Amino acid sequence: MAHTAYYGDEAPVAALATDGSRGALDIIRVSGKGSLELFAPCFSRGEKLLTAPGNVLLHGWIRDSGGALLDEVMLSVFRSPRSYTGEDALDISCHGGGRAARSILERLRELGFRDALRGEFTFRAFMHGKLDLTRCEAVMELVSSKTELSLKKAAGRLSGLLYTEIKEIKDLLIEVLTGAELLLDYSEEDGVAPPSGTGGTEDVLPGRKAAGAAVLRLAALAASYARERLCQEGALLVIAGRPNAGKSSLFNYLLGEERSSVTETPGTTRDWIEAWVSIGGIPVRLADTAGFQDSQDRIERQGIERSRALVARSGLTLYLVDGSRGMEEADREFIRELKGMAHNGEAVRNEIAPNGGAAPAVLVVWNKIDKAKLPDAMKAEMTGISAKTGEGMAELEKAIIAALVPESDCGDLTRPAPGIAAERQKLLVDRSLASLKEALALADAGGPLDLVAPLLRDSVDALGEISGEVSTADILDAMFSRFCVGK
Amino acid sequence: MAHTAYYGDEAPVAALATDGSRGALDIIRVSGKGSLELFAPCFSRGEKLLTAPGNVLLHGWIRDSGGALLDEVMLSVFRSPRSYTGEDALDISCHGGGRAARSILERLRELGFRDALRGEFTFRAFMHGKLDLTRCEAVMELVSSKTELSLKKAAGRLSGLLYTEIKEIKDLLIEVLTGAELLLDYSEEDGVAPPSGTGGTEDVLPGRKAAGAAVLRLAALAASYARERLCQEGALLVIAGRPNAGKSSLFNYLLGEERSSVTETPGTTRDWIEAWVSIGGIPVRLADTAGFQDSQDRIERQGIERSRALVARSGLTLYLVDGSRGMEEADREFIRELKGMAHNGEAVRNEIAPNGGAAPAVLVVWNKIDKAKLPDAMKAEMTGISAKTGEGMAELEKAIIAALVPESDCGDLTRPAPGIAAERQKLLVDRSLASLKEALALADAGGPLDLVAPLLRDSVDALGEISGEVSTADILDAMFSRFCVGK
Repeated sequence: MAHTAYYGDEAPVAALATDGSRGALDIIRVSGKGSLELFAPCFSRGEKLLTAPGNVLLHGWIRDSGGALLDEVMLSVFRSPRSYTGEDALDISCHGGGRAARSILERLRELGFRDALRGEFTFRAFMHGKLDLTRCEAVMELVSSKTELSLKKAAGRLSGLLYTEIKEIKDLLIEVLTGAELLLDYSEEDGVAPPSGTGGTEDVLPGRKAAGAAVLRLAALAASYARERLCQEGALLVIAGRPNAGKSSLFNYLLGEERSSVTETPGTTRDWIEAWVSIGGIPVRLADTAGFQDSQDRIERQGIERSRALVARSGLTLYLVDGSRGMEEADREFIRELKGMAHNGEAVRNEIAPNGGAAPAVLVVWNKIDKAKLPDAMKAEMTGISAKTGEGMAELEKAIIAALVPESDCGDLTRPAPGIAAERQKLLVDRSLASLKEALALADAGGPLDLVAPLLRDSVDALGEISGEVSTADILDAMFSRFCVGK
Repeated sequence: MAHTAYYGDEAPVAALATDGSRGALDIIRVSGKGSLELFAPCFSRGEKLLTAPGNVLLHGWIRDSGGALLDEVMLSVFRSPRSYTGEDALDISCHGGGRAARSILERLRELGFRDALRGEFTFRAFMHGKLDLTRCEAVMELVSSKTELSLKKAAGRLSGLLYTEIKEIKDLLIEVLTGAELLLDYSEEDGVAPPSGTGGTEDVLPGRKAAGAAVLRLAALAASYARERLCQEGALLVIAGRPNAGKSSLFNYLLGEERSSVTETPGTTRDWIEAWVSIGGIPVRLADTAGFQDSQDRIERQGIERSRALVARSGLTLYLVDGSRGMEEADREFIRELKGMAHNGEAVRNEIAPNGGAAPAVLVVWNKIDKAKLPDAMKAEMTGISAKTGEGMAELEKAIIAALVPESDCGDLTRPAPGIAAERQKLLVDRSLASLKEALALADAGGPLDLVAPLLRDSVDALGEISGEVSTADILDAMFSRFCVGK
């Protein structure tokens, strides 16, 4: 485990872990060397605390420096190394509403606790070998999960699904690398035959088959990124169409089914309204646009322009045709325009766009099938629904999922499988895979082992960086500073 | 302890106790008969949980019905009767962000837990004799505390300060009542002399002195209400004055000192801005008005009207005189107007007004003493400050506290003393005191004991209702339905 100078110490730190709670409880987390001894003087049962074993609960009162009661609390007592951080630690469960927590934190500062930095508890867990970096990243994913599917994917990584896959691939590669280095050592001693079993004349690289298997597993991990990231970050789904096509009805239908499990985000302008919904477990930011009709009105035109910009950075646009009027020339024109629209580069970087920002996908949807059937001739190019009766909605949801999750990566989204969701992980998997492929191409072409071995070593090192066995202060700084305080 | 049909059962219930948290953790509370057994199947260490003693921590995972991991959690295990509710209970500490908590709650419902009602945990604590009603009310006060002083006052009541005072007074009165009833029994048996020591001929009511002491203590409690309520609810303090008197500077000065410890409430109209600050521990809702100048402009006049309405329901108005211009006739006119202003009855009921809604108090303040000294002749009627340099501000704060806390109740606000803060408590203390006074007046006038005794009994019963020894479903319903969920 790497030890860096980042954050750096084991000083007693404290933080509110339930910031913003309007509920009955607040939790203050405390961790660090000597933190129980530092805390004891303000606690009504300080003596009891000092002799308490780990993993027990202690009830008592916290007093201010003058002895006045501040709050009645329940302490969760943790003794090193059996704690989240690996250090002596407390979770202080106090009354909610924020005031008790604020006064207790103030008291802790008086006693010598320092405010914990963002992610400092998880950082300490990493430093003390309690969590590798993939699990640290999973903690952050858990906290920002939008749907139960996102949560389960993150929980899988927290349980070590990704860590284990990386470790197994690395072990394969280390075997290959060790064999290669052994061969190198012998080849430097002229005339000595290599030990039997480390490869014959055709088999230039010992363990070539294992290396091939590693390539496939690394490629599968690299390919998992789009899918896993989609499950965590979600996609922007824009509903477009001419006035009265039923955009609001579809919006409300999709929202209604999920109303209890989404956070509504009020639109920032009057031009569209939006909300997060879950479609097949994928978090979808649903936006209902102002429509695409031409207009001479200046204000209205601005709204239309903003809708176009929204479509340009969407992951998927549903274009609604008003079935009761049928497919008109204006619809065909808009659909052509949508399909030809280029993604806005800057927006794609900041927003949610599957397929790495290729042109936005468009699904054409024939609405109001309760009034007018979808003509057979059009069944190939569009889906028929009634946002009013709900008919065809299950098929539409399937079509949305198929459009968002590229065929090759699809499979069953809910099946637990190792996957990567962090950009950092993706860059390292890509580097490991590229070095490995280069090493194998060179070896297969009969290249010298003293050029192959360093490439293999880089492939292994990149995997070591994923779990954090190899790490630098810069990497850790960048990662943990994105955490929330108290985590 | 009274047992009523309210809420009524010991069924396993669950609730999120950290609603709205944006922090690292969420806590789900679980309580009820058989709740540990009901929970065990979704927990990775179910067997361990079933045999765990109380007051221990258990680490593990929660799985969905299909066995998929939902979250890694830490359980606080409580065994009846050693828990908040007195029942078997769990605090489930899961990852924050809301998604994990939502999925776990959904899982708990599947297993048969019902959503806890508002205040149901505290209600159960009351039903199982863990908390009397004054302590239940203190829990609610703690959660809504605005300043550290509010918190300490509430913590004092939670620790039993009020309960003990009520109990001691009640014990005094029970002694008096018992003596009176004994005398009554004997007087019904003609010719038998009363037992010695229970009162002679002059001493009609045995324990008359103790009853007199009880009157004083009850009167002190009744008088404490305005002070304690002020500490909990706070007061509305309006800053008024002509344009350029320095209203915004004073507002910002008072806010600036406390910026870190108040929640800013954005003004709902453009006519004034407001924020909560702590002045000597008293929560003060500070409002900076649009000023009181005459205006022909219709919109501006509406603003002024609203400012007048604000002053009308304030606890205290600071009228700022622009010292650089001196006290002008227009100032005198406005001050006369302020002092003559009647409190708006409806507003007083809903807003914060000390002195039970008497005419709003006015403090006249001479601002800008750094530029122009307060003339000696005016020192009796006003305080001099500089909102710019801070000179005189300590004196102003003292004057504010003296104006908000009536002389008779003042004392040292921070000294722990039994006091009542809930309207329910006040009504019962008033009833107890009135019945007691009536009983004593009757007894002192030589009235018959069979009329005195029922009055004494009512005085005792009213005190019993305060702690909840005597209670009805209606009272409990009204009290606990004001709690938050998870408490």
